[in-house]
Amino acid sequence: MPDTFSTAVAGASGYAGGEVLRLLLGHPDVTIGALTAGSNAGERLGGLQPHLLPLADRVLEATTVETLSGHDVVFLGLPHGQSAEIASALGEDTVVIDCGADFRLTDAAQWEKFYGGTHAGSWPYGLPELADQRTALGGARRIAVPGCYPTVSTLAIAPALAAGLVEPDVAVVAASGLSGAGKSLKPHLLGSESMGNASAYGVGGVHRHTPEIAQNLGLVHDAAVRVSFTPMLVPMSRGILATVSAPLVGAVGEEQARQAYAAAYGDEPFVHLLPDGQWPQTKAVVGSNAVHVQVAVDESAGRLVTVAAIDNLTKGTAGAAVQCMNLALGLDETTGLSTIGLAP
Amino acid sequence: MPDTFSTAVAGASGYAGGEVLRLLLGHPDVTIGALTAGSNAGERLGGLQPHLLPLADRVLEATTVETLSGHDVVFLGLPHGQSAEIASALGEDTVVIDCGADFRLTDAAQWEKFYGGTHAGSWPYGLPELADQRTALGGARRIAVPGCYPTVSTLAIAPALAAGLVEPDVAVVAASGLSGAGKSLKPHLLGSESMGNASAYGVGGVHRHTPEIAQNLGLVHDAAVRVSFTPMLVPMSRGILATVSAPLVGAVGEEQARQAYAAAYGDEPFVHLLPDGQWPQTKAVVGSNAVHVQVAVDESAGRLVTVAAIDNLTKGTAGAAVQCMNLALGLDETTGLSTIGLAP
Amino acid sequence: MPDTFSTAVAGASGYAGGEVLRLLLGHPDVTIGALTAGSNAGERLGGLQPHLLPLADRVLEATTVETLSGHDVVFLGLPHGQSAEIASALGEDTVVIDCGADFRLTDAAQWEKFYGGTHAGSWPYGLPELADQRTALGGARRIAVPGCYPTVSTLAIAPALAAGLVEPDVAVVAASGLSGAGKSLKPHLLGSESMGNASAYGVGGVHRHTPEIAQNLGLVHDAAVRVSFTPMLVPMSRGILATVSAPLVGAVGEEQARQAYAAAYGDEPFVHLLPDGQWPQTKAVVGSNAVHVQVAVDESAGRLVTVAAIDNLTKGTAGAAVQCMNLALGLDETTGLSTIGLAP
Amino acid sequence: MPDTFSTAVAGASGYAGGEVLRLLLGHPDVTIGALTAGSNAGERLGGLQPHLLPLADRVLEATTVETLSGHDVVFLGLPHGQSAEIASALGEDTVVIDCGADFRLTDAAQWEKFYGGTHAGSWPYGLPELADQRTALGGARRIAVPGCYPTVSTLAIAPALAAGLVEPDVAVVAASGLSGAGKSLKPHLLGSESMGNASAYGVGGVHRHTPEIAQNLGLVHDAAVRVSFTPMLVPMSRGILATVSAPLVGAVGEEQARQAYAAAYGDEPFVHLLPDGQWPQTKAVVGSNAVHVQVAVDESAGRLVTVAAIDNLTKGTAGAAVQCMNLALGLDETTGLSTIGLAP
Repeated sequence: MPDTFSTAVAGASGYAGGEVLRLLLGHPDVTIGALTAGSNAGERLGGLQPHLLPLADRVLEATTVETLSGHDVVFLGLPHGQSAEIASALGEDTVVIDCGADFRLTDAAQWEKFYGGTHAGSWPYGLPELADQRTALGGARRIAVPGCYPTVSTLAIAPALAAGLVEPDVAVVAASGLSGAGKSLKPHLLGSESMGNASAYGVGGVHRHTPEIAQNLGLVHDAAVRVSFTPMLVPMSRGILATVSAPLVGAVGEEQARQAYAAAYGDEPFVHLLPDGQWPQTKAVVGSNAVHVQVAVDESAGRLVTVAAIDNLTKGTAGAAVQCMNLALGLDETTGLSTIGLAP
Repeated sequence: MPDTFSTAVAGASGYAGGEVLRLLLGHPDVTIGALTAGSNAGERLGGLQPHLLPLADRVLEATTVETLSGHDVVFLGLPHGQSAEIASALGEDTVVIDCGADFRLTDAAQWEKFYGGTHAGSWPYGLPELADQRTALGGARRIAVPGCYPTVSTLAIAPALAAGLVEPDVAVVAASGLSGAGKSLKPHLLGSESMGNASAYGVGGVHRHTPEIAQNLGLVHDAAVRVSFTPMLVPMSRGILATVSAPLVGAVGEEQARQAYAAAYGDEPFVHLLPDGQWPQTKAVVGSNAVHVQVAVDESAGRLVTVAAIDNLTKGTAGAAVQCMNLALGLDETTGLSTIGLAP
Repeated sequence: MPDTFSTAVAGASGYAGGEVLRLLLGHPDVTIGALTAGSNAGERLGGLQPHLLPLADRVLEATTVETLSGHDVVFLGLPHGQSAEIASALGEDTVVIDCGADFRLTDAAQWEKFYGGTHAGSWPYGLPELADQRTALGGARRIAVPGCYPTVSTLAIAPALAAGLVEPDVAVVAASGLSGAGKSLKPHLLGSESMGNASAYGVGGVHRHTPEIAQNLGLVHDAAVRVSFTPMLVPMSRGILATVSAPLVGAVGEEQARQAYAAAYGDEPFVHLLPDGQWPQTKAVVGSNAVHVQVAVDESAGRLVTVAAIDNLTKGTAGAAVQCMNLALGLDETTGLSTIGLAP
Repeated sequence: MPDTFSTAVAGASGYAGGEVLRLLLGHPDVTIGALTAGSNAGERLGGLQPHLLPLADRVLEATTVETLSGHDVVFLGLPHGQSAEIASALGEDTVVIDCGADFRLTDAAQWEKFYGGTHAGSWPYGLPELADQRTALGGARRIAVPGCYPTVSTLAIAPALAAGLVEPDVAVVAASGLSGAGKSLKPHLLGSESMGNASAYGVGGVHRHTPEIAQNLGLVHDAAVRVSFTPMLVPMSRGILATVSAPLVGAVGEEQARQAYAAAYGDEPFVHLLPDGQWPQTKAVVGSNAVHVQVAVDESAGRLVTVAAIDNLTKGTAGAAVQCMNLALGLDETTGLSTIGLAP
């Protein structure tokens, strides 16, 4: 194993790219090579990501195969549909980690229904805590980083489904901070519109993360899992709080449910079942790769209800990317990642 | 009918009392009499509610039967358990409008389970848009203002239940601003803790508004309605955004669902079904008595999903109180109330 | 005087236009005629300003002389430089109220230095509380609504200058909510960037509101007033909190200073000197036309320090516009305006 | 030098203590020993500081000399007035770092005027970037961590004063996030009150940080420096943005001013003069120990204006504490500290 691995980040002016860089700056085993962008190529990084002070004077290059070639690891934070071409031109030994959606779905029909256009294929799915994904990620050279909502929703309910505690009929309602929408210049994302405002969008099963959640849950349950997914925007920059519920299968006690979660996540370095009586909050995981989970049994309603919190940019995107890089390179999975949030 | 009605507000230093006063200041048919408080008695209102400039120099009196007597209408914004004694001492002809929970539940067992202590009884329930409540409120002299979560949750799903579109098995996830918790001095309500933070609480059917939602929905459905209710706090002062879903009964089309809602709310002055494709946001209803509702059918998940937004302090508390006062006094129901929000 | 006056709003999809409409909807003496926009022409207002429910189904027309003609009052909420041409084509008897900057500055050289391009001229300045502006606004047919920062800064320090308590050497630092920047789609205005963030801009005397403040203060002081103005953006939608200080002239006592402010604003319906010990906060004036002011004498530093709060969209823009309309039409100056804020 | 130094934190349930712990968890040369609290003694840290996951199961002890004894370093995050007694009972070789105010002021008269009670004395002042403080901090065994406002205000204007560019007549207006007020349960600090709100307080030279700023600036200027200090609360958890201005001495060019700052801070690891045209924002320094500074010359107003941003809990408190610990222990000054912020 070399002393250090060289990395490049495509889309370094965006939120995914910026968070990858924040984490790589604290990673002991990597160097940071090419930083590329689309319309921001040629600009100082310091003007775009002023929080990344050690890289302030780096100038962004254009996102091309040439600039990205020659690195051990390439992170892609690109708009949908742009990853396939670049990845195919990079060497087979390069670890290519796509923070976008292009290679997440295995079902071409679902891809076409939700994203449109041609399905690029699928890569090992970067959620090590799900089923046997960790094994698949070891030594992988192409990795699809999960969506932020699918990460938190999947981890919130998978143990209950796997243990047969609930019916495969899952309702997810998740509140996300604004950074989940990226730096898109859309009116409803302005601070003046979004501060003091909670708003629904993508209701009724039309959000693109719906099939991804169902795909994940299908890996822990014998039959297809029905997923009702409703996202909402709430006035914060970072974080997702997901409430996931499903009908109980017979009489399930809360202690039984807790045991299922404790067993599922007891050895996981980043997924943390909170003590009885303590409920997740996003601020506790801001900037960290941790997932906080809690579970309750509502006998009266006949439902199991779980709540989970992540930072959409860390465990929901860039932290997962670095976690997968570690697995791909044979490093300790937790290197350069933290379970400590930034609060208050 | 007299030219104007005299009003008093108990709990004028709190959020419910302050919002009642904001609305009464714009109401053409009332005068504002006694303003009372508990620990803040003796203080200038201007120091506690600096936004109510025309009342800034009014001094709060102690909340007693004496100070509250002699008004046509008395609004109570008191901690749970304090309304019964005061109400019983006020004249039978006085319109007493309780913004607290004491008289909302009809079932003493549910009261004892969720609130503890002795059930004070029940009063006409101040949600005119529900079943035949409007009739019951006409001329009423005792009125229980609904809880904020029950108001928005009930209005979001009642038409679907009433029309038999969904099973009586309802899942509510609602995001609320901080003012819903009142001025309680608790650490998690501090700005430093709550800004940038979404947090769950009262999960698993233990929140006190759960039986109230079920009671309401029982009025529009033949059988008992199971309710799974999960609240969360999100970083804003005002507003609730509720997502309510339930399993479809057979094949229900979205147009059929929209028609049920259009029929239910077509004549309602404050409940507004948004045009197709537009989803509720809390900021559009801040300071207004309006409820914005939208509905979707998720065929793939087999669920009907609705989203509704209110201002928890206006339609969720003080606006409902004034709306009910209007009905009780025989005034036009909309007097002094607005459907215009304050945005951005 | 006619029963009602017809009004039109150019730029009805923007923040200034939206706030003008919010106020006009509550104004007893006007009807709302043409609503026009630039790129949003042809759209339903309800999709752009969902809080203005009574106007939701109105469709925006193009901003042209034709659509705006034939009204008693025309409000202009247009980008800089577009008002002059439209105004010149509207009848001389039409009350034209420009919420933009085009006609605020009297000095062409200052206009060219700070805005560039040709100076369009100057109109009566819509700050009735300043010097003899109220008289000039009575019956006026062309009115320039002041900038938001100049309104709050001027009112904060003018009495002290007029009374000779301070040197004409004023330092203004003002924190503004995001709506002051309009709906411009710029990255730093995104919610993800601006939440949790305080940022400086326009430092060093380069902000366009600098000469406007100096112009105003020149009206209450014999000689030129030097103004150092530093704006900052803070994470809220509405509101400006301005701190204004200047060196004391000799020994000025706090009581003396308070008396100067009490005398200056005692008869003003919208400017309110807070009681001793209470300091302004923006939330107390949100949605209201009120200005809250407080003053202190810092003997140790040798400075008089004042703080004032306004809602940048109400008293800072649209409320001032309606106040001026009232004066122009001979209505009571306060008609349709409130001193009650929306809090919490 | 030992391999690692043992540390204890008094006040581990508060914000200063929590932030010290967040930093110590990432510091390679320390172990974390006793964690103590006042009213929270006996509780799990995980319930109070859920973001500090690795310490979640640690139970807080009472703050006593016994629990704190036997560590190499003791951090005190205590209410004013409690540090002296504990410090005097800890060994002389123990490094005691007080995050409170007790030992910051050298002038007993100023202490009594602003804090009341008996002056406890003064310790080496933990602002290494100021005058010759770095030398004094090397090997120190008692250290007073500066106040957050004094840190950012001092660093913003000291180079200009030291270089004789400005008169010793400084006006500071600083906007702070809510965490600066600690976890005090006061109504105006509630999220419902503080969100969407900018408010002034401590105006007119009465804030306790005023004499501390003056004391600092007196170290870089021959004569006494007059300081007008106005703090305000703005709706964010962390961060201070300070605007500091002073009259120019003669004709000072912007390039000359920039050079003075570049010279003063060129070798400082944590103070960063931004490139021309880029202005500080608090979000760029959240969680980091960096200070971002920018300077402008306003010829028209005759003032030099600087803006600086820090995280009040990091460089403003706990980061400074760790930086000073490093100096006291002979470690590299930057160990365990970062110049990378958490954004967006």
